[in-house]
Amino acid sequence: MSLVAVGSVAFDSVETPFGARERMLGGSAVHFALAASFFTEVRVVGVVGDDFGAGELAVLERRGILTGDLERVEGGRTFFWRGRYGYDLSTAHTLETQLNVFGDFRPRLSSESRAARVLFLGNIQPDLQREVRAQCGAAMFCALDSMNLWIDVARDSLLEAIGSVDCVILNDAEARMLTGEASLTRAARAIRELGPRLVVAKQGEYGAALYSTDGFFALPGYPLETVVDPTGAGDSFAGGFLGYLAAHAGEPLTDALFRRALAYGTVLASFNVEEFGTGRVQRLEPAEIEARYGELRRMTQFDAVPFTRSP
Amino acid sequence: MSLVAVGSVAFDSVETPFGARERMLGGSAVHFALAASFFTEVRVVGVVGDDFGAGELAVLERRGILTGDLERVEGGRTFFWRGRYGYDLSTAHTLETQLNVFGDFRPRLSSESRAARVLFLGNIQPDLQREVRAQCGAAMFCALDSMNLWIDVARDSLLEAIGSVDCVILNDAEARMLTGEASLTRAARAIRELGPRLVVAKQGEYGAALYSTDGFFALPGYPLETVVDPTGAGDSFAGGFLGYLAAHAGEPLTDALFRRALAYGTVLASFNVEEFGTGRVQRLEPAEIEARYGELRRMTQFDAVPFTRSP
Repeated sequence: MSLVAVGSVAFDSVETPFGARERMLGGSAVHFALAASFFTEVRVVGVVGDDFGAGELAVLERRGILTGDLERVEGGRTFFWRGRYGYDLSTAHTLETQLNVFGDFRPRLSSESRAARVLFLGNIQPDLQREVRAQCGAAMFCALDSMNLWIDVARDSLLEAIGSVDCVILNDAEARMLTGEASLTRAARAIRELGPRLVVAKQGEYGAALYSTDGFFALPGYPLETVVDPTGAGDSFAGGFLGYLAAHAGEPLTDALFRRALAYGTVLASFNVEEFGTGRVQRLEPAEIEARYGELRRMTQFDAVPFTRSP
Repeated sequence: MSLVAVGSVAFDSVETPFGARERMLGGSAVHFALAASFFTEVRVVGVVGDDFGAGELAVLERRGILTGDLERVEGGRTFFWRGRYGYDLSTAHTLETQLNVFGDFRPRLSSESRAARVLFLGNIQPDLQREVRAQCGAAMFCALDSMNLWIDVARDSLLEAIGSVDCVILNDAEARMLTGEASLTRAARAIRELGPRLVVAKQGEYGAALYSTDGFFALPGYPLETVVDPTGAGDSFAGGFLGYLAAHAGEPLTDALFRRALAYGTVLASFNVEEFGTGRVQRLEPAEIEARYGELRRMTQFDAVPFTRSP
């Protein structure tokens, strides 16, 4: 089934305790699409400048990602982000942002993209998310990501965008900020009352939680000795999650399906952070995904036992 | 099987966004013992002043907790703590601490306590933890809790205490502080290299993780709409965990057993925080524990599926 992702395509310069890299291929749509490409066909809707070369394009195309809706602005430059992580790696410190062509981004969807069954609205201005959502009338499942900036400066538009999707993917702090609820359980319910049937809370090293009418489900992060670069982990997570859903979009969207999707999202995010940028996911093998999914399952299962008090 | 807990017995005055309570029964040994009492016979080793009355004692005795090793200092006053929690409820702000009789606490164990098969060294000065550990030669499983204060001011003694136990129970920040490792996976390994076969990392609302030679296991916190008072959650967790282990101490200590124990710890902690002080756990019913254990299991299970990429 077809999956379309709208979001940023970027060059990232990143410094972590494990080193520094300049102008790596990045952006929400890129990390998302690479992760999702292991499960289904993905189209990327985004914008780049003429500094985005054949090498970058080839990274996407080698994974079968369709780039026909990747607009190239002649004479423009691609979105650029420079950031640094300290030892705890949970917070990115932005050192420099050059929006460049991304500042005037107006997503234009081909007829193939408009026919997508599954849609990912990456973290872009909520007005644009709503425009794209409106163009994709055939989508049977649509998920949205956002960030503190839009909660702050475009709250009403974001609330309307949220009302138009099936699933919201946010980190804990964003869910709390959006709803004013300190309890994540209450925050998720408040978001679901806006329309979405699902809320996915991203929790970094603590994993992810799923809130729906079927209740609560949570997974820990896959435990790693070393997180080299967390950039894009959330988008790889969303890519694994929606990629798996899109691959099964012909089946009923059951709670069991969402749980497996959350596990695949967790697995893809864990590979993403093992190396700088997209390096690890670029050379990932399906068998590695399968193996880690099985490991994650063994790390979270425990027996049902009758409760007995010893005498 | 017999379980002995050494720790603080206290009066707590607590303020949270949901209200305030004065001089509630509290302390690590109390929260621990109440939680553990649902699984096994528990002895409390601690010290109180003569402000500790029949009412407080009755709370413990109603749950079958043995208080013969609870020393009463005539003319002394019981340990007192006053604290406040903000809306995020994850950090306690200490407003007042009166060590009182606890400042001169030297645990004295009866012969029954020294014969304990399972031992919990609650968060007290590490020299005292070592003394108690040395007195309990029959213990086949011993767990230790600590805190940032002792990591700071009694590090060497604490490292030695850790070397003498089977299991260390710490929160994430303490595990990182103790080892200097930002990665929790590395921190847990460093602690296990000191001797313990198990490290349990407490993660507040994110649940708990278990590190052992059998690998990694993690559970989310049980999701609650409202956390009224987090005081004692970590000790209730430890009580559920060790209480369950003590009840099964005649069986081989397998990874599956530790996992179930971690789930019971998670369940007991979740009840602890639903009301101020020990209120909720005092009137807890075994059937409620069993039901929540089953719920927690349903919240964490997902299917093994063959990995398939759609065409």
